[in-house]
Amino acid sequence: MNYSPINLEEKLDKFADHWAPKIIAQMNDYHFKLVKFQGDFVWHSHADTDEVFIALDGEMSIEFRDGKVDLKAGEMFVVPRGVEHKPFAKEECKIMLVEPAGTINTGDAGGELTTEENVWI
Amino acid sequence: MNYSPINLEEKLDKFADHWAPKIIAQMNDYHFKLVKFQGDFVWHSHADTDEVFIALDGEMSIEFRDGKVDLKAGEMFVVPRGVEHKPFAKEECKIMLVEPAGTINTGDAGGELTTEENVWI
Repeated sequence: MNYSPINLEEKLDKFADHWAPKIIAQMNDYHFKLVKFQGDFVWHSHADTDEVFIALDGEMSIEFRDGKVDLKAGEMFVVPRGVEHKPFAKEECKIMLVEPAGTINTGDAGGELTTEENVWI
Repeated sequence: MNYSPINLEEKLDKFADHWAPKIIAQMNDYHFKLVKFQGDFVWHSHADTDEVFIALDGEMSIEFRDGKVDLKAGEMFVVPRGVEHKPFAKEECKIMLVEPAGTINTGDAGGELTTEENVWI
């Protein structure tokens, strides 16, 4: 049988919208998602889970109520469960997220940027 | 507070041995690990969990009993639970693994390449 790798760049080329994560892989009950950030996201938290951000291309920041972390390509960060955060990218940044299947992008905050149903690409 | 990103290249520079995964991050009860592959690993499987391979630098393959997958930098693959596999890299390849904390590198196979206790770097 011929198995196919998941190529991140090819997957990133399949969409152009911002803030709406797309699923590219599943490991147990976790999803690996790609997302493009540009501008300001909303303050939110995820009560039940940590959330991993891996910067693939570009630069982004995650603001916290008491500080922030800057990420560039090749850097990652784990936002602990329950901690309020606000992603931000001055210019477009391409990111891989790792989190439990069903995790909502805006967490507890809701609002117009909410993507209830993540799609596979 | 000043939060620090996890820089993959800096972490990779901290070790030179092959086949012994080092932990760089924890998300819930999962670990993100870096590992350097060169040569042939052993056939093994993980009965209880899928396992994610993300190639960061170089090229590697994962052989299965009925085929194989080739990964180069920027590509990933999820080995399903229970499926026998054998990682292989002709030249050194740098990889990120994602799997539950406590996952043993040689799975059910044991042997001299087993790293029972993964260390944090």
